[in-house]
Amino acid sequence: MARHQKPLELKNTRITDSLFGHYVDTVSEIMVPYQWKILTDQNPETEPTYCVQNFRIAAGREKGERKGVVFQDTDLYKWIETVAYCLASGRAKEYEAVVDDVIELLSEAQEADGYLNTWFQVNQPDDKWQNLIEGHELYTSGHMFEAAVAYYEATGKSRFLDVARKNADLICRTFGCGEGQIKGYPGHEEVELGLIKLYRVTRDKKYLEQVRYFLEERGKKPNFFEAEMKRRKKPTFFPEFMNYDLEYSQAAEPPAEQTRAMGHAVRDMYLCAAMTDYAEETGDQKFINASRAIWDNMVNRQMYITGGIGASGFRERFTTDYDLPNNTNYCETCASVGMMMFGLRMASVEGRADYYDTVERALYNTLLGSVNLEGNRYFYVNPLEMVPEFCTSHTYMDHVKPIRQKWFNVACCPPNLARTIASLGQYIYAADDEALYIHQFISSEIEGVAGETEYRISMDSELLQNGKVKIKAGLSRDGVIKIRVPYYGNKYSIVVDGIDTDPEVCDRYMIVRLPKGESHIEIKFEIRPRWVSARDEVRADAGKVALMYGPMVYCLEEADNGKNLTGIYVDPSETISKVSEIKRFIGRLPIFEFEGVKLINKGVEKGKLYGLPKFETENKKITAVPYCMWNNRGIGEMTVWLKSRIPV
Amino acid sequence: MARHQKPLELKNTRITDSLFGHYVDTVSEIMVPYQWKILTDQNPETEPTYCVQNFRIAAGREKGERKGVVFQDTDLYKWIETVAYCLASGRAKEYEAVVDDVIELLSEAQEADGYLNTWFQVNQPDDKWQNLIEGHELYTSGHMFEAAVAYYEATGKSRFLDVARKNADLICRTFGCGEGQIKGYPGHEEVELGLIKLYRVTRDKKYLEQVRYFLEERGKKPNFFEAEMKRRKKPTFFPEFMNYDLEYSQAAEPPAEQTRAMGHAVRDMYLCAAMTDYAEETGDQKFINASRAIWDNMVNRQMYITGGIGASGFRERFTTDYDLPNNTNYCETCASVGMMMFGLRMASVEGRADYYDTVERALYNTLLGSVNLEGNRYFYVNPLEMVPEFCTSHTYMDHVKPIRQKWFNVACCPPNLARTIASLGQYIYAADDEALYIHQFISSEIEGVAGETEYRISMDSELLQNGKVKIKAGLSRDGVIKIRVPYYGNKYSIVVDGIDTDPEVCDRYMIVRLPKGESHIEIKFEIRPRWVSARDEVRADAGKVALMYGPMVYCLEEADNGKNLTGIYVDPSETISKVSEIKRFIGRLPIFEFEGVKLINKGVEKGKLYGLPKFETENKKITAVPYCMWNNRGIGEMTVWLKSRIPV
Repeated sequence: MARHQKPLELKNTRITDSLFGHYVDTVSEIMVPYQWKILTDQNPETEPTYCVQNFRIAAGREKGERKGVVFQDTDLYKWIETVAYCLASGRAKEYEAVVDDVIELLSEAQEADGYLNTWFQVNQPDDKWQNLIEGHELYTSGHMFEAAVAYYEATGKSRFLDVARKNADLICRTFGCGEGQIKGYPGHEEVELGLIKLYRVTRDKKYLEQVRYFLEERGKKPNFFEAEMKRRKKPTFFPEFMNYDLEYSQAAEPPAEQTRAMGHAVRDMYLCAAMTDYAEETGDQKFINASRAIWDNMVNRQMYITGGIGASGFRERFTTDYDLPNNTNYCETCASVGMMMFGLRMASVEGRADYYDTVERALYNTLLGSVNLEGNRYFYVNPLEMVPEFCTSHTYMDHVKPIRQKWFNVACCPPNLARTIASLGQYIYAADDEALYIHQFISSEIEGVAGETEYRISMDSELLQNGKVKIKAGLSRDGVIKIRVPYYGNKYSIVVDGIDTDPEVCDRYMIVRLPKGESHIEIKFEIRPRWVSARDEVRADAGKVALMYGPMVYCLEEADNGKNLTGIYVDPSETISKVSEIKRFIGRLPIFEFEGVKLINKGVEKGKLYGLPKFETENKKITAVPYCMWNNRGIGEMTVWLKSRIPV
Repeated sequence: MARHQKPLELKNTRITDSLFGHYVDTVSEIMVPYQWKILTDQNPETEPTYCVQNFRIAAGREKGERKGVVFQDTDLYKWIETVAYCLASGRAKEYEAVVDDVIELLSEAQEADGYLNTWFQVNQPDDKWQNLIEGHELYTSGHMFEAAVAYYEATGKSRFLDVARKNADLICRTFGCGEGQIKGYPGHEEVELGLIKLYRVTRDKKYLEQVRYFLEERGKKPNFFEAEMKRRKKPTFFPEFMNYDLEYSQAAEPPAEQTRAMGHAVRDMYLCAAMTDYAEETGDQKFINASRAIWDNMVNRQMYITGGIGASGFRERFTTDYDLPNNTNYCETCASVGMMMFGLRMASVEGRADYYDTVERALYNTLLGSVNLEGNRYFYVNPLEMVPEFCTSHTYMDHVKPIRQKWFNVACCPPNLARTIASLGQYIYAADDEALYIHQFISSEIEGVAGETEYRISMDSELLQNGKVKIKAGLSRDGVIKIRVPYYGNKYSIVVDGIDTDPEVCDRYMIVRLPKGESHIEIKFEIRPRWVSARDEVRADAGKVALMYGPMVYCLEEADNGKNLTGIYVDPSETISKVSEIKRFIGRLPIFEFEGVKLINKGVEKGKLYGLPKFETENKKITAVPYCMWNNRGIGEMTVWLKSRIPV
């Protein structure tokens, strides 16, 4: 299994990109302090979260009721994980002491047997591990493990890792098919990912074995969740679980037998990422096969053009093939994070660059679009079509917000975004025994080892400006750099140390062999704005086109194009011109302009709803902006998909 | 107030129409027996409803738990009301004895003080009148009153009326602003309608006064429901009430101050119908003003072309102006019934025929479309666009079914449909001191009195075949017939007793003065199939057209046009031809054919979701069928709105 790609250590990564560099700065400069204020109830603009206070109560430092959602603890864990990644790259140093204090608190709150979950410790001490469908105890532990490993790797301090191991050991004792053990598994997958990370850092095989147990036990007959639901009769935490179905938590059949993306999108992604991780460690092919089938189903039948997933606004879940409504959708930020995690692991195991096409799609569009430019307002739901007036609360549109929010009652997304941006390096570079991999064209610097060669890379990417990517590579001995050929970049030229080259391409990587010493690679991708369409079965997009440029999806905003965007028609054969940038935006992103028409119906009497059709058109200059920049200029209409004029 | 129109007594109505006659037959021959079997748990194909059994338990005839939804009793009341209307028109005679037995049972179940509600009597005897938001006690009583009045009017038997009055008297004692009274009002309006009917038949003013109390107390500050929700903290019956808002039950402000359709659509319609009823009895103008404003908002901003209302699939409610999605919508059958009730009352009070344009729209489309041709399968939700594969349960489409159902857990719609069809005469004819009114062109015979003239009318309508309506009228003395000029029928010719006539038109009624004796009126409306469009603000219908013919909305079905109906484009200037009928359908309804094109995208690689747009078109003969007939030929795609080719 030695050929699998591994991400490089974050320590040695520096993101210098004009677009992503901004967001990376934002994480340490804005998000970490902002979110800390929120977690400690020091932000006057948002409701108290009680997040840190809950730990103080569990630790006995304060008295009171444990408040917030049942999995509130995870917000803190994800925040610590974010700080850890920042520290690894030399940022947010002032928070190391803060985290050390928090770790002290966690360790105080932990029970003698390793149990640590503020909800159950304070509010329902007798009900531990009883509500696996809704209780999120294992999920919460998983985030603890991920944070603990990240902090250990960033700082070398093992205190938090000890807490995590103690908790993990308890889980290993508690869950299994032995006598007195609970023959169950998590309602929300995540603990598997945490356990794998613990295994990788400790090499303690029981953590890996526990992952196997969870993966193989899940969905077996007689069904554990079916029995649990029957026993509890009613949902405890989430009223919408009244009509619970096993598919929701990927428990209708064993994961290894699943062949399509199903149920709650975040859960499914975490499960798949864990399956792939487990397969990477063990070579267990049945999990790779299942992961590949689910990935293919998702990407080719259930994924939005923005890399969003989860078409159903109700229960945040996958629906069925080609059902991709643009305005009632969910496309949770966390689901795209999960998809990136899954894709990274698939690429690692299968060695195919195309997984990164999808990772890139989610990263450039849904992920960046979920946060405002300042880094302190967030989307949980990422629609592809917005009419602000239609976002009526208490209706079918209740979940869709026309503007990014300061925080959420269920606040999984902002810290998940933060930890992903803070660890962006893992999505850009990887290494195996043979080569160093470049997966994304994001300006950055790293140092890393592949095989016996040390690489020092400095990438200067102008992919979105002119398609040019310059890579300066310093190698300690002869080596190989494999560079992903993105799906939109099949036409390119490459110059290595001044010489036109035509490198071999394998598994969608161009293979560039370099001698010891410094080399300069210059790639020029021919990328132009292009119209994209969906297959006919996607009813929501029938007869429509969307504009893309490289990995970026574009959209129309009311700020540039006025109201009633659904009345706009474009002709995909019209010339698209690049116009000057929009000052409010960042990253020197191109803005595009083209001719279109706007349909106006003059057949409906004033004040009436319906009338005879009397369609007239007016010519209109249309401006498209990157989807990830939308809603940074006030509330307004937005649409990704545009009606196309059809051939006459 | 003597000039208000009143419906004629149903006793003297006979529906002979080729379309509606079928449904009227179906009510007495199929629905009444089928529904009785269901209510008494004798239908092996559907889950037990426990409906009649609940009354047996409440009456002490059986032991056991009271099962089904909290307002299950109303299914029985609506069924009795249906039987009463059947009996009034000489149908379903074999059920009179059955109803008499049931009434005996009800009277046994009723408590000494008049209380009668099987849920609370059996399951929560100490919690009566405590949960007004969700408990539906007043709602249930309202349906009891409506049924009792109908049965009394049909049979002259007063036993059920006595039960109802005893219950109504208890309500009058219980609710009010006096000492010891509950200062509350119903969460689901309906009792007001029942009380008005009780008042009309008994002339007991306290019932009318109680209606005034409920209408005026509702939405007052401090808000009763706000306090109740605070007191109860959690919803009891409906988990989705967790995030309850006052608008849902029209309680955010007093009804007389409301200016738009809001909240749960059925509730709003029942409230408005009651306001209008109350205003008719009392002349209280503030309620008329509110009703008119709400009606106008609904019809001109929140109503589907099919007469469906309630755009939100979540919470069955109104959303906001112009938000009219075609596939996730609710358009509950009961909401359209409520709208018909509201429209009838508005027409009665205001004397304007145009209210019946909307009543007719709901009747011909949503109402008839909600039941299959056999009368034993029902839609609760009436979508305007259907892709059967997308109706995934447990998702945002959970509420939308691709095929009519045998029954429902919440089974309000089937009996509501039945009672409406069984009392169809009230929507066709009315009378005031001056004239007899003809509102719908549905073949039928009636006898009625207007002022001092007796009318014997026989209408033979071929409106949907050739626009011809023949009316034979026998008058006991000189009189006036006012005939509605429908919005689609402004061009017409009229011949009275062989003479071309050009009658005065006032408030959209043509006023035909007739002498004593027999007269023959022949009207020929010039109606042709026509394309209709929505105003630009209706984003869901932008650039689309729907085909109508008279009051009937047409749709495309997969059975005639294949799959991917969203890929079809039509040119509204193309000729539409009438083709031979479809045998499976009834009522000699025209089927239309026209040329269209189907868009096929050849730019997406096999197995992929997205690609470059490479749109090609193929010419296609399109067939449109009446919306009310859809889904009578198996499961398949359906759409009302079609993409229009736009002018080049």
